[in-house]
Amino acid sequence: MSVRIAVDWGTTALRLWALAPDGHVLAERRSDKGMGGLSPDAFEPAFLDLAGDLVEAAGAAEVLICGMAGARSGWRETPYAPVPCTLSGKGAATVATRDPRLSVRIIPGLSQADPPDVMRGEENQIAGFLVGRPDFDGVLCLPGTHTKWVRVTGGRIDHFRTVMTGELFALLSGASVLRHSISGDDPWQGDAFEQALRRAMHAPETLTAALFALRAESLLASQPPGATRSALSGLLIGQELAATASLWSAHSVAIIGEPTLAALYRTALAHAGVVAEVLDGGDLVLQGLRTAFAELEETGV
Amino acid sequence: MSVRIAVDWGTTALRLWALAPDGHVLAERRSDKGMGGLSPDAFEPAFLDLAGDLVEAAGAAEVLICGMAGARSGWRETPYAPVPCTLSGKGAATVATRDPRLSVRIIPGLSQADPPDVMRGEENQIAGFLVGRPDFDGVLCLPGTHTKWVRVTGGRIDHFRTVMTGELFALLSGASVLRHSISGDDPWQGDAFEQALRRAMHAPETLTAALFALRAESLLASQPPGATRSALSGLLIGQELAATASLWSAHSVAIIGEPTLAALYRTALAHAGVVAEVLDGGDLVLQGLRTAFAELEETGV
Repeated sequence: MSVRIAVDWGTTALRLWALAPDGHVLAERRSDKGMGGLSPDAFEPAFLDLAGDLVEAAGAAEVLICGMAGARSGWRETPYAPVPCTLSGKGAATVATRDPRLSVRIIPGLSQADPPDVMRGEENQIAGFLVGRPDFDGVLCLPGTHTKWVRVTGGRIDHFRTVMTGELFALLSGASVLRHSISGDDPWQGDAFEQALRRAMHAPETLTAALFALRAESLLASQPPGATRSALSGLLIGQELAATASLWSAHSVAIIGEPTLAALYRTALAHAGVVAEVLDGGDLVLQGLRTAFAELEETGV
Repeated sequence: MSVRIAVDWGTTALRLWALAPDGHVLAERRSDKGMGGLSPDAFEPAFLDLAGDLVEAAGAAEVLICGMAGARSGWRETPYAPVPCTLSGKGAATVATRDPRLSVRIIPGLSQADPPDVMRGEENQIAGFLVGRPDFDGVLCLPGTHTKWVRVTGGRIDHFRTVMTGELFALLSGASVLRHSISGDDPWQGDAFEQALRRAMHAPETLTAALFALRAESLLASQPPGATRSALSGLLIGQELAATASLWSAHSVAIIGEPTLAALYRTALAHAGVVAEVLDGGDLVLQGLRTAFAELEETGV
């Protein structure tokens, strides 16, 4: 017997599901052993630490991985699939293992030549989304550290753009001069978010000056920390919408992500006259990996 | 006898000059005891560590300080002078000291209500600049961690704008995902700087997407680290020019700053059709403080 194990291996965390032949979940595990903290040699031990008992019980395991484990400094570098392309588990690359009970494959990420862009992991959420919505014709927004905006039509990924909004928010609120004006405990202020959002959408070219104005406003007008934090988020998301307008304008938009963050993006898009639907991304990862397993089975590899 | 000591007390460093009655420099000292690392109680001891022997030799000292020592968490908070205003040492605020030999004053910074902005230290370089150029009518650019663009006319500061370019460059090159694509040792590439500069000036609204494209380009096209670093600088300075165009367009521009950085700004402005003059800021600080001493003497305070 062999157990199927679906793995989402990101930069900061690792999540896996043991699946029965019919696809239902036998076990679910998480660990903080993300790709960012592992040398290539450390991936197989990290996997066995988390799932060794599942492999032992079944005698062998078919392992299918998406995400950063396929990056240059991951378990094994898997080449990107260039867009436009359709998504398929069939492109998964085999990884040599020391443990003979393991058969491990990594799903490749996507690349784009112009403008240069890359994706590793989100494509699997999109594959999961397309299972239920094969005819979706529009743009998917996947907010996070590096937010992805992805034009999808006829089951194909046409084009995408990555924006560093989440990483910039973390750096600016935690490590720049703005940290003196921002506190995580002070309550969120929706008005400050929306005012900054409108300002950034109206004049996105002023972003790097508007950032310092947040610091000055907190000094001169004793702006509360929660308002400054909300305004920082509004400035960055507003600039992001301006940067990606050619993607989302005149298309249906679906936001896939953590509910609080997804709601901010929905509010922002509403200011631009776009009514976006919101989906939770958690289930889509598993759905994508299930589908990739099925596609591999079809090909008998 | 009393010695005059002129002090430029910034966030990361402290620099002082002992001046003879005719203004010539008797001694110059530097320390890394910037305002950022000091509690209010620690300023007087830090000053005496660096200049105690000068005070001892003269018996007393008239101390005049510009910069962050006047900030909220500095030696003593001095209120900002709101623009538009002329610059004068007469506005300096007295600081109480434990050592009776010291008479200490701090020159106030500048503030602006709309858009909100603040300045502490650069105004003294501007005062120094105006000594030699009292009729300057144009814009001063003072590049640094927080670059200042300042509209000056008839000896008056009319308006200014601060852009976080230097701090963003440090955070992005040192702490973001871009750090993997950037190395300080790889040589600067002027072509990459200018190409990114033009891109940012043409489409400044795309900045936060263009930042991730630098990472993707280094992965896909094996862009050398020096090219990525130069391009990052070009994107940020290009965005800065777009943010401040209403200030510098249609005016004379003079750049006051460290020569390497000033040359980048001059190149950038040349791409926008502006021929800027460049001045070294080091001497201007001292010139500004000398003038402020003279102004205080006139009033007999």
